[in-house]
Amino acid sequence: MPTSSEAVLRRWIKSVPHFDTEAARAASERQSRLTKPPGSLGRLEEASVQLAGILGSPRPMISGKAVVVAAGDHGVAAEGVSAYPQEVTAQMVLNFLRGGAAINVLARHAGADVVVVDMGVATPLPPHELLRVVHIADGTGNIARGPAMTGEQACEALVGGGEVALELAHSGHNLLAFGDMGIANTTPSAAIIAAVSGRPAEEVVGRGTGVEGEAYDNKVRVVRQALEINAPDPSDALDVLTQVGGFEIAGLAGAMLAAATCRCALVLDGVISTAAALIAAGLEPRVRDFMLASHRSVEPGHRVALDLLGLEPLFDFNLRLGEGTGAVLAFPVIEAAARILNEMASFEEAGVSDRD
Amino acid sequence: MPTSSEAVLRRWIKSVPHFDTEAARAASERQSRLTKPPGSLGRLEEASVQLAGILGSPRPMISGKAVVVAAGDHGVAAEGVSAYPQEVTAQMVLNFLRGGAAINVLARHAGADVVVVDMGVATPLPPHELLRVVHIADGTGNIARGPAMTGEQACEALVGGGEVALELAHSGHNLLAFGDMGIANTTPSAAIIAAVSGRPAEEVVGRGTGVEGEAYDNKVRVVRQALEINAPDPSDALDVLTQVGGFEIAGLAGAMLAAATCRCALVLDGVISTAAALIAAGLEPRVRDFMLASHRSVEPGHRVALDLLGLEPLFDFNLRLGEGTGAVLAFPVIEAAARILNEMASFEEAGVSDRD
Repeated sequence: MPTSSEAVLRRWIKSVPHFDTEAARAASERQSRLTKPPGSLGRLEEASVQLAGILGSPRPMISGKAVVVAAGDHGVAAEGVSAYPQEVTAQMVLNFLRGGAAINVLARHAGADVVVVDMGVATPLPPHELLRVVHIADGTGNIARGPAMTGEQACEALVGGGEVALELAHSGHNLLAFGDMGIANTTPSAAIIAAVSGRPAEEVVGRGTGVEGEAYDNKVRVVRQALEINAPDPSDALDVLTQVGGFEIAGLAGAMLAAATCRCALVLDGVISTAAALIAAGLEPRVRDFMLASHRSVEPGHRVALDLLGLEPLFDFNLRLGEGTGAVLAFPVIEAAARILNEMASFEEAGVSDRD
Repeated sequence: MPTSSEAVLRRWIKSVPHFDTEAARAASERQSRLTKPPGSLGRLEEASVQLAGILGSPRPMISGKAVVVAAGDHGVAAEGVSAYPQEVTAQMVLNFLRGGAAINVLARHAGADVVVVDMGVATPLPPHELLRVVHIADGTGNIARGPAMTGEQACEALVGGGEVALELAHSGHNLLAFGDMGIANTTPSAAIIAAVSGRPAEEVVGRGTGVEGEAYDNKVRVVRQALEINAPDPSDALDVLTQVGGFEIAGLAGAMLAAATCRCALVLDGVISTAAALIAAGLEPRVRDFMLASHRSVEPGHRVALDLLGLEPLFDFNLRLGEGTGAVLAFPVIEAAARILNEMASFEEAGVSDRD
């Protein structure tokens, strides 16, 4: 007898639509008639064609932009894997709600709404109009000693995050970024990426917010131990999430899945956001076609995860902040791609001679 | 007895200010107190510090954005170096004035003004409020047979372009992009880059709007011949411009020089814009400190020119359109960098714990 979360999840998985190849083909054909040498806008043209296929229109329009910032705490923080104390998760959530964090500045600049989701922050948070409360528990279990969560918690977290994305999609947002906040969360992200890719811990563990020397070696050991103790099944995304994931990672994966059912364009951020994308694409491979990678972070696991998804990021700014910052920085570029397709004159319209 | 253009040029060269290292230092110090791990916004932090030094303020604000699109024709088009007929230069200028070109779409998206400058288009153009007329001549000389222009024309073109930039700076624009339109203009750009770098023609000549096979080999031969016949002095930027340059390239170089005197941030576009930057930096090396590179184009000479200037572009989108498109695409990123510095809360302000 499935729980109701499981049933919702199954329904979402079934209803992820196909990429609209016909709309993409029509967009590509239009690009070749616009007043520029064919292909001369490079990645911008490619992004416009992908948007056409995602949004299901040869003239894709961005109707609303938002970033989902999912926050959660991690039992594994007790292993000393982060340069910052756990209380910073909640402090930064308050900073998001007051508008003082990097993601707030970049979202204002891009004209994007910010929604923060408490997926499982250990410190109590006051109610706020920008805060959605899913709160599966006061942080995950310590993955160095046992599983991050139960299978039921994983389903509930996926659905809780998904419902936030549906709220955004239903209020007209079709360009969504997926950001994270959670002290220690590069550790479960590395564990997910190692589990899914089969790469050893040392190839996917990075320095996070700034662990160096012995602390870095310890972080590699912790990821290795988490994989040994919990033995996640690489072919089962739900099991990987349950064994070595995080509540905010689950929330983001669920948000991506649910948003894909509404034909939203999904813009990934750094290593945590992309670990969540691996889970979402593991649950339903069609979700992958709705994803765009914004940047390549300095985290080594990010590159591995992007390769697994077959995504090439737009830029490489040496970012390692999370919160969705890189994804929201890419919004103006992605929106520019759509506008080029919609607003440029064709050779015929402009009376410009085509090639000799 | 110097001509009046020469005197203006000399005055501008003298009045390029120094990069404000004190403002840059203060900006860098502020970055370290904002609510994020130090350095975690990577290139965005670097750009904010450079903006502080350029604008001369530890809290740099973008007060207005514009793109100067300089247009000109080239006698060397007669050598079959372009995939498009020469009349396209004027047709595309009309497209700019009607708002249908890629640069119009991207400038609208970035909130930037567009000013088009007829630096020497061969086809007559009607008056238009967005069009500035410098018009040195109906196109340059054919550099495969002789010099592009006289030394006096080069000075006049530099000053003509510079005056357009001053008009923009005086009306509150402090973030300027430099774009080009001119059928065949990757040929003089390659010649400038080869002359200044000492690299052979085949290493800096690219496919422009799309020349392939024999047409590409011919383009390499034409650049080699232009350098042999005109023998520009690599140590004399004015001579390089005179011998193998273009009127729009001169206009952009002058615009960069004049804008630097007003502490504007100068955002370079592709290979033509960057060839102009080599001329501007050759006239006065301090101008270099006011430049930001937006993208790395597919033109091989672009990479060589950026290396000579010591500039690392923000992104690589395989662009090869010109018009200032890549530069204006970078405006939102550059503006984001300034806003991060101005709007983010510090650890103290936000009550967030700093590192353990």
